[in-house]
Amino acid sequence: MAELALSDPVVQSFIVYSAILALKLISVSLMTTIARMTRGVFGNPEDAKAFKGTVKFDDPVVERIRRAHLNDLENIPAFWVLGALYLTTGPVVVWATILFRVYAVSRIVHTIVYALIPLPQPARGIAYAIPYIIKWYMGFQVVIYYISAV
Amino acid sequence: MAELALSDPVVQSFIVYSAILALKLISVSLMTTIARMTRGVFGNPEDAKAFKGTVKFDDPVVERIRRAHLNDLENIPAFWVLGALYLTTGPVVVWATILFRVYAVSRIVHTIVYALIPLPQPARGIAYAIPYIIKWYMGFQVVIYYISAV
Amino acid sequence: MAELALSDPVVQSFIVYSAILALKLISVSLMTTIARMTRGVFGNPEDAKAFKGTVKFDDPVVERIRRAHLNDLENIPAFWVLGALYLTTGPVVVWATILFRVYAVSRIVHTIVYALIPLPQPARGIAYAIPYIIKWYMGFQVVIYYISAV
Repeated sequence: MAELALSDPVVQSFIVYSAILALKLISVSLMTTIARMTRGVFGNPEDAKAFKGTVKFDDPVVERIRRAHLNDLENIPAFWVLGALYLTTGPVVVWATILFRVYAVSRIVHTIVYALIPLPQPARGIAYAIPYIIKWYMGFQVVIYYISAV
Repeated sequence: MAELALSDPVVQSFIVYSAILALKLISVSLMTTIARMTRGVFGNPEDAKAFKGTVKFDDPVVERIRRAHLNDLENIPAFWVLGALYLTTGPVVVWATILFRVYAVSRIVHTIVYALIPLPQPARGIAYAIPYIIKWYMGFQVVIYYISAV
Repeated sequence: MAELALSDPVVQSFIVYSAILALKLISVSLMTTIARMTRGVFGNPEDAKAFKGTVKFDDPVVERIRRAHLNDLENIPAFWVLGALYLTTGPVVVWATILFRVYAVSRIVHTIVYALIPLPQPARGIAYAIPYIIKWYMGFQVVIYYISAV
């Protein structure tokens, strides 16, 4: 069984897209803060006091961003793990790179059409389904490859 | 200090159970979608419009699945990290494999008794506590092993 | 390109702080359980029945701990990934260790001032902003280092 090296193009591709997805994920925190500040709605009394706003849990704009954020948490960490494990199965470089790239771009589009510019369905559904299927594909590849180890 | 290799049985065991847990985690997303569709309750107005349902945040079935999902997010990523780091401490293969296997099976049972077939306590409590203790155990092993590095 | 080894001090430093953050993260689950038990408020009818409490979703103490927990989920997994990838860029050992240490300490302080002893702002804001900036810094270092791989 071959070992992976940091000099492998497919490893480097995974590293870059994983980092981009991490930065995308934490960008949504900033979107929440900006929305809270501009709309004056906060989740804690000490924040409402400091920024002269109110405590409110049903502001439509803030809650929409929070739903997009939670959706990221449900999906991006699973990608990091499945993508890293998928690398160990020796995938074809070009194919794996396409998967990582399509995954990252779709998740960025997902955030845009969910939290920034809400579009009618199926815009968000498609931006969700493509990376979702990629995760299942990578996961099955990993399990099939290593199944004798269980 | 020994390095890890992908050919190590304990590494392969960790890879398989990590992948299974990732697929289990993202399966809960599908459970949420199915529950939303069959019950006609959605979190966004554009979804309610597209699928002719209503926006509702207190449907008991959907919210129960969402709590199970959040519980996964609070636990499974910590397992991925603690399990990977635990591998680097050179654990006995059979023992580490048992921990990974019990962890994965317990978390699958947790999802079943939480979201699929709600059982009276302590069913969910036990399915939660066993993997929770495994995480603490692995975490302490890691910290003790490397403590001189801090 | 150099490979990383488990004997590298910077790798060991990352391992210890990652494990500490994982244990800190799962400690918040225990805080939630203790708060639910002592206040008799639960998220599921079977729990309320087993522990003779009530189902309630707006208890201020429990909800505050849950917000702190969610904030951890939005931040700590991204640190694990960005920190691990940052290691591969060959950072100066002392500098990287300082970043990991400041990150971990700030996140622990964040939990304390959010969930244990709520302090007026900007206590929580500062404990949030420092590790947030560290993640952006590490992420940019990674993307710049590997950008030719995309």
